[in-house]
Amino acid sequence: MSLMLDEIHQQPAAIERTIKRESKKIESFAAKLKANRPRLIVLVARGSSDNAALFGRYLIEMTTGIPVSLAAPAIHTLYKTKMDLRDALVIGISQSGEGVDINLTLENSKRCGATTLAITNEAESSMAKLADETFLIHAGRERSVAATKTYTGQLLIFHLLASAISGNGHRPEIERLPELAASALTLQPRVAEMVERYAFMEQCVVVGRSLNYANAFEFAIKLMETCYVVAERFSGADFLHGPIAMVDGGFPVFVFAPPGPTLKGTKELLEKLKGLGAETIAISSESAALKLASRKIAIPQPISELLSPIPYIIPAQLFAALLAEAKGLSPDQPRSLSKVTKTV
Amino acid sequence: MSLMLDEIHQQPAAIERTIKRESKKIESFAAKLKANRPRLIVLVARGSSDNAALFGRYLIEMTTGIPVSLAAPAIHTLYKTKMDLRDALVIGISQSGEGVDINLTLENSKRCGATTLAITNEAESSMAKLADETFLIHAGRERSVAATKTYTGQLLIFHLLASAISGNGHRPEIERLPELAASALTLQPRVAEMVERYAFMEQCVVVGRSLNYANAFEFAIKLMETCYVVAERFSGADFLHGPIAMVDGGFPVFVFAPPGPTLKGTKELLEKLKGLGAETIAISSESAALKLASRKIAIPQPISELLSPIPYIIPAQLFAALLAEAKGLSPDQPRSLSKVTKTV
Repeated sequence: MSLMLDEIHQQPAAIERTIKRESKKIESFAAKLKANRPRLIVLVARGSSDNAALFGRYLIEMTTGIPVSLAAPAIHTLYKTKMDLRDALVIGISQSGEGVDINLTLENSKRCGATTLAITNEAESSMAKLADETFLIHAGRERSVAATKTYTGQLLIFHLLASAISGNGHRPEIERLPELAASALTLQPRVAEMVERYAFMEQCVVVGRSLNYANAFEFAIKLMETCYVVAERFSGADFLHGPIAMVDGGFPVFVFAPPGPTLKGTKELLEKLKGLGAETIAISSESAALKLASRKIAIPQPISELLSPIPYIIPAQLFAALLAEAKGLSPDQPRSLSKVTKTV
Repeated sequence: MSLMLDEIHQQPAAIERTIKRESKKIESFAAKLKANRPRLIVLVARGSSDNAALFGRYLIEMTTGIPVSLAAPAIHTLYKTKMDLRDALVIGISQSGEGVDINLTLENSKRCGATTLAITNEAESSMAKLADETFLIHAGRERSVAATKTYTGQLLIFHLLASAISGNGHRPEIERLPELAASALTLQPRVAEMVERYAFMEQCVVVGRSLNYANAFEFAIKLMETCYVVAERFSGADFLHGPIAMVDGGFPVFVFAPPGPTLKGTKELLEKLKGLGAETIAISSESAALKLASRKIAIPQPISELLSPIPYIIPAQLFAALLAEAKGLSPDQPRSLSKVTKTV
């Protein structure tokens, strides 16, 4: 078994551990924010952690009403801009905590008046040392180059943080995530069967929206780095503004289709793609979406949109790990990559 | 000649007209902001306008220090979130001014306390009517489905706005843009020769960073919508965090390589890609970058990084319009698209 597949299977336990060990710290941090509510939250990350930040962005805005910006690290690292970050909370997300650009951005943000927070898997990392506060993902060392358990760990931290800041009452729901993740893992035999068909796929599109927009990016990056598939990623709406012209008969489009306010648009997109003769593969618990798709990855139980991103990415992680094997590649040894990428 | 090519050639005149007609209004708007400086600027757009917003984001943060966020329209349209937008300036960017999601986002932002601004090519549009203030691109009606002159018009408005807010003294430089755009158009014969080689290209990557990150997105969307090429787009740094694994011998990577603080990293990327045997095509005025690339689109004169995005996108627009023809496609009639895409 590949390291990647092994780590995919560690997720229910990692999620359970992180809920148990970090909840209190996150709640007391949020309580302190009440007196001094940030006017802006800035998220800074690269790679899969940046995909997790995309989720954080939607979840935090939606539940707390605080505007969120995804930082452009170059502004801090290359241009050393003096930003107005009074009353801003700047959150670095990095599994290793050693991303040079992330750490330089946090340092510059501090100088510009921001409070800083680190979300990382490594308690002793440079990022944990320099941030005002650190939330840990208790995923255990991630050895696979392709991040899986740290990505879902980062999503989980955003769940805990948003629920603590907003007090929106979804905290008890979060307790269900280990079980939902375990249930998603039961899709492995189904996914193993499916990937054979895609052994020679060279390009595709992945679509997701809102809370699952991050998953479109994350599934695509997994396909790029472990399977060398040129995988584009879009929100359903952005896809319609130009890129859909690429699609002709047989073109593969993977679609995350959770319930909730995005479902109507997602169903319309699936119908439009059907009309174009595309091959759509839906990841969904919703029969209304599944029946519009050419192929289905049916999530085994109904899950609210809010909770969907962690269980929905799991079959996609399995798909990438198993497709790499079907293509005769090792998902643990992507060419040209190492575990910690240092950029500025 | 295609409408698209015709409109590409209208850009120097459109830029000159817009500078002449909009500068005063933009300067007096910026003067009013001085008394009541925004704490946050939010940009909201789709498609090519959203690419222009990516430029605005870097330029405004870099020159004014005011944090900028690219809005997630769904937060406003589908979830109707009550955001904390006191002291925020929310800017809608849409060539037609009829983007439903953009307009709903502006309306919700107003309710949440924001000042709103519209950047559009259509003075009588719904967006111009609902925003507190409107800046017009005087590009003349855009008839090609693929936006070109409105994209550079939007970049121009951001130049004028950032220079007026920051008072950074780059205003006289902006006057050079019509001439720089005209000079970039002289590349057409060179580009027409080049595209033959790419008639059967099915996928590629476009890389740009910082102020030219927007151009990577814009070149890629042009290749997707007019040439049906699966064109990925990345910042140089993000490309290294996973996606570079896709690249093997002969894989085409287009690279915007302006001078300035990003050049060092761009040269390192070109070297890395050379080592992987990729085919790199550099768009640059810098001989140090051009000599590392497999193929070159040499910008005819030195241009500062700050001014580079408009003249640098022009050969890329020409490339897409001419490649479409080389592929036997009409760039004016992309399949599955119409000029105004309505999404929520």
